[in-house]
Amino acid sequence: MKHPSSAWLADSVQQLLIRDLLSRVRSWAPDQTISYRELREITYAEFLKRVNQLAIVLTRLGVQAGDRVGVMDWDSHRYLELFFAIPMLGAVIHTVNVRLSSEQILYTVDHAADSLMLVHPDFFEVAEAIAPRVPKVRHWITLSDDAMPPATSLASVGDYESLLAGAELEFDFPDLNENTVATLFYTTGTTGDPKGVYFTHRQIVLHTLAEGLALTAHNNPFSLSDDDIYLPLTPMFHVHAWGFPYLATMLGIKQVYPGRFEPQRLLSLLAHHRVTISHCVPTVLLMLLNHPESKQVDWSRLKIAIGGAPLPIGLARAAANRGIRILGAYGMSETCPIIAASHIKPPRSGPTEAATDPIEIVTRTGFPIPLVDVAIMDSAGVCLPAGRENIGELVLRAPWLTRGYLDDPLRSEALWKGGWLHTGDIAYRDNEGYIRITDRLKDVIKLGGEWISTLELENALSQHPAVKEVAVVGVSDPKWDERPHAEVILREGIGVEITPRTLLKFLHTFIDNGTLHQRVILTQIRFAATLPRTSVGKIDKKALRLGLQNPTTENP
Amino acid sequence: MKHPSSAWLADSVQQLLIRDLLSRVRSWAPDQTISYRELREITYAEFLKRVNQLAIVLTRLGVQAGDRVGVMDWDSHRYLELFFAIPMLGAVIHTVNVRLSSEQILYTVDHAADSLMLVHPDFFEVAEAIAPRVPKVRHWITLSDDAMPPATSLASVGDYESLLAGAELEFDFPDLNENTVATLFYTTGTTGDPKGVYFTHRQIVLHTLAEGLALTAHNNPFSLSDDDIYLPLTPMFHVHAWGFPYLATMLGIKQVYPGRFEPQRLLSLLAHHRVTISHCVPTVLLMLLNHPESKQVDWSRLKIAIGGAPLPIGLARAAANRGIRILGAYGMSETCPIIAASHIKPPRSGPTEAATDPIEIVTRTGFPIPLVDVAIMDSAGVCLPAGRENIGELVLRAPWLTRGYLDDPLRSEALWKGGWLHTGDIAYRDNEGYIRITDRLKDVIKLGGEWISTLELENALSQHPAVKEVAVVGVSDPKWDERPHAEVILREGIGVEITPRTLLKFLHTFIDNGTLHQRVILTQIRFAATLPRTSVGKIDKKALRLGLQNPTTENP
Repeated sequence: MKHPSSAWLADSVQQLLIRDLLSRVRSWAPDQTISYRELREITYAEFLKRVNQLAIVLTRLGVQAGDRVGVMDWDSHRYLELFFAIPMLGAVIHTVNVRLSSEQILYTVDHAADSLMLVHPDFFEVAEAIAPRVPKVRHWITLSDDAMPPATSLASVGDYESLLAGAELEFDFPDLNENTVATLFYTTGTTGDPKGVYFTHRQIVLHTLAEGLALTAHNNPFSLSDDDIYLPLTPMFHVHAWGFPYLATMLGIKQVYPGRFEPQRLLSLLAHHRVTISHCVPTVLLMLLNHPESKQVDWSRLKIAIGGAPLPIGLARAAANRGIRILGAYGMSETCPIIAASHIKPPRSGPTEAATDPIEIVTRTGFPIPLVDVAIMDSAGVCLPAGRENIGELVLRAPWLTRGYLDDPLRSEALWKGGWLHTGDIAYRDNEGYIRITDRLKDVIKLGGEWISTLELENALSQHPAVKEVAVVGVSDPKWDERPHAEVILREGIGVEITPRTLLKFLHTFIDNGTLHQRVILTQIRFAATLPRTSVGKIDKKALRLGLQNPTTENP
Repeated sequence: MKHPSSAWLADSVQQLLIRDLLSRVRSWAPDQTISYRELREITYAEFLKRVNQLAIVLTRLGVQAGDRVGVMDWDSHRYLELFFAIPMLGAVIHTVNVRLSSEQILYTVDHAADSLMLVHPDFFEVAEAIAPRVPKVRHWITLSDDAMPPATSLASVGDYESLLAGAELEFDFPDLNENTVATLFYTTGTTGDPKGVYFTHRQIVLHTLAEGLALTAHNNPFSLSDDDIYLPLTPMFHVHAWGFPYLATMLGIKQVYPGRFEPQRLLSLLAHHRVTISHCVPTVLLMLLNHPESKQVDWSRLKIAIGGAPLPIGLARAAANRGIRILGAYGMSETCPIIAASHIKPPRSGPTEAATDPIEIVTRTGFPIPLVDVAIMDSAGVCLPAGRENIGELVLRAPWLTRGYLDDPLRSEALWKGGWLHTGDIAYRDNEGYIRITDRLKDVIKLGGEWISTLELENALSQHPAVKEVAVVGVSDPKWDERPHAEVILREGIGVEITPRTLLKFLHTFIDNGTLHQRVILTQIRFAATLPRTSVGKIDKKALRLGLQNPTTENP
């Protein structure tokens, strides 16, 4: 590109920094409150002072730009202060997943090279166990809820509150480059070591703005507003509690942090503070709704974003019957996390069928939020058009996706193959533009360049009255690369003869109505008396695949 | 800052481009409509096709990255298409201010070095007059509303519609650097040539997100939503119609462009399309409300942002009485433009007095929107705390402020003195955090490092029963740099003797209640029989200042 004069290109571009999320709230909502359980309530004015004090404490302990600081805490006002103070120093907050095993926690603290750790007493035991093996940790700070912190063998320099109490109220935060890393946490897959995922100041700010716009600009199923009251129902170590704490703080809304997740306390806090906005995984919602003391909550106040797993329509309906407004949300650790939300279009926007059940819409994976570009890619890397018949891997571009896994160039490269972030989710875009995830990539079969969903195939076969149980895996095939293999347990006493051909004919119904790809007719079907199972009783597809390297029964 | 491994700094950062504002709407709202007067209605699907066709037409005419393309049109769907297509090519849209004199238009087209001009027939006369003197313009395109464009001596390559009709539907827009300049327009002051103000893709995207969040996240006085219907009541050449067209398009809402501003047509379009959201200067609102045919509009649907001039409380009340929800907004050409909006805080946020009249709040200059950092700076460059007694120049930081005036390094440097954008507005932050503009910089006096408002001083003196008319200017002073001089015409037949000392004593009332700075006691007061006036009858302060270089009457 040519630029006719130097004035055409910005000589200095104002950086997007987490610090700037706070510039407005200082005078917008100084008296608004941030609560921690039933134990503490501070105002935003106090919160801002404490962020400054915290920065002074951390600086005195030698924390410098680029250092990693590990946090092991439940959702708390302290965690919120750390969300801001650590990155605003130019350091990186490592939000330790306290649900990992102690060996995995050891791995992440060591891999992140944390130089300072802040630990709640509930995690003293783990911390004490790993402390001798993480020599890079120079200092420990305790995060106690009590005036007298419990005893610990950790070489603690003091408790959070007492350290803050001795610090001045003003800190001059540095001007940073917006591409400075701000946050770091680890995600665990089924195999291999945990992977470090990290986000820059620019990414956090852009995610906050786009998530905020997505949550506020739509009327249906709900709109977030400046008079909402927020309580997180997901842990803050899990992808920054989906970015909601940054957004809630920027907007200056009332916030309530619940500490350790105890259903009874959550219900009591929801009721007492008249909470209006939250977010959680489906199982937490189910647990709260089914709790014997759930009656104390006026659920009709509540707007909840649900993500982390598919939202079953039965649960969505049960929540709606209690008056909750539910929004489906989609994202993953690598995506900061929000990518899509299942908003309902206003009338006349596009081809939404008037008869569509709104509850059905909110259980869809979601519609991309602003600045997100999504594509469905087949195994050859070709982007597919909308339509249920065009399933492929969901790939993403957005300005807030992690640039890779920390110090892991190979897996980073795989994540970003071809310039798109590969989610490992198999999906299609429906004709209204919503993303519909059908499978994880490991659950699909690549058949001559087409994706075949094992879950959909299992679902179809299981609808035949003779089928008691079924598991589908891919087996290698010289012509098609892979083809489906269905291991079927038949019901006893059906009375008619069932052959593989019977079931293949049955699949035609699904092929004809467009539910299944026509190539599922290439499925090989084998009848068995049992299916291999894992120690927790789930079907062991890995064992099944291994046992199939020399299949013995096959339909022609 | 140190970064422990290359992975810590993003090796490639996804750019913020105007193109990405469109990524979502393609499938969110393909059937939603964009109307132009009573003449045309297109869907978003058609709009997107036309943006592609337009890019093909412009590329064929030789438009390249970095080129400037001038537009002279009323608010139209075509203008919206040009808002996107030109920057998405890497070129710069120059939104020509069609209200300037033909000599000024000539100056701006020449200074911008426009290589292509698109002109509505209403501006053929001006364009024909300047055409021989702008040899850098290689091509002209007409923007006709009729199938048969009127005759013109411009060397037109064709009419917009017929050129589009012949173009393919798909264009592959380039990946750009986000700091590529996207838009350019000229602002005129009281002296000197028009100044070119320009904004990059990054700035437009960030302004769209922050403006969007400000308009959607607050409940009071209103919240923008995805089911709103938009019609601009300010021209698109004026700071991109305050960025609303970019926001409305990103959200996929119904849009109505009214063409030439004719009150009767505006009222008819507002009524016919049941418009719910707009923005304008106070005089346009006044004109519409007072129009004999204003009854046809259901004003209670309407939410209007008002800016460009202080909003008189009487007008705000008149609008509220019609059911309109009014939001004050503040910005200027150099700021893209939105900086602040007069949202009303929810309860318990801060020290808003419960008794405060909400209409009074919306007439305040406004509260900074997200990512905006404001300060009040005294003449020594020191930032002042909140409080009515601390007036100074309003200075700004935000990621979407123009980096300067095109090819004008001296005035650019003055604009950005000390790393803050200097607005030239004199203001204070009130105790609730709202910006309150009191004067333009040229109307204040620098007295020993303090700002003294001539408007407030005039206002105070005019309240003395003996004062018929008063004008205050600054005169140079060896001790104080400047001190106020008040030229006063006394009423006749007052009956008591009035001396300068009488009026100075009177000023003590205002000093004592905190309305005026105590140093106004240094005002020199002179009685006169007449005041110098300009040709249009306004008090000529420049002449008054000149006449005061050797003042003859002075209080001790």
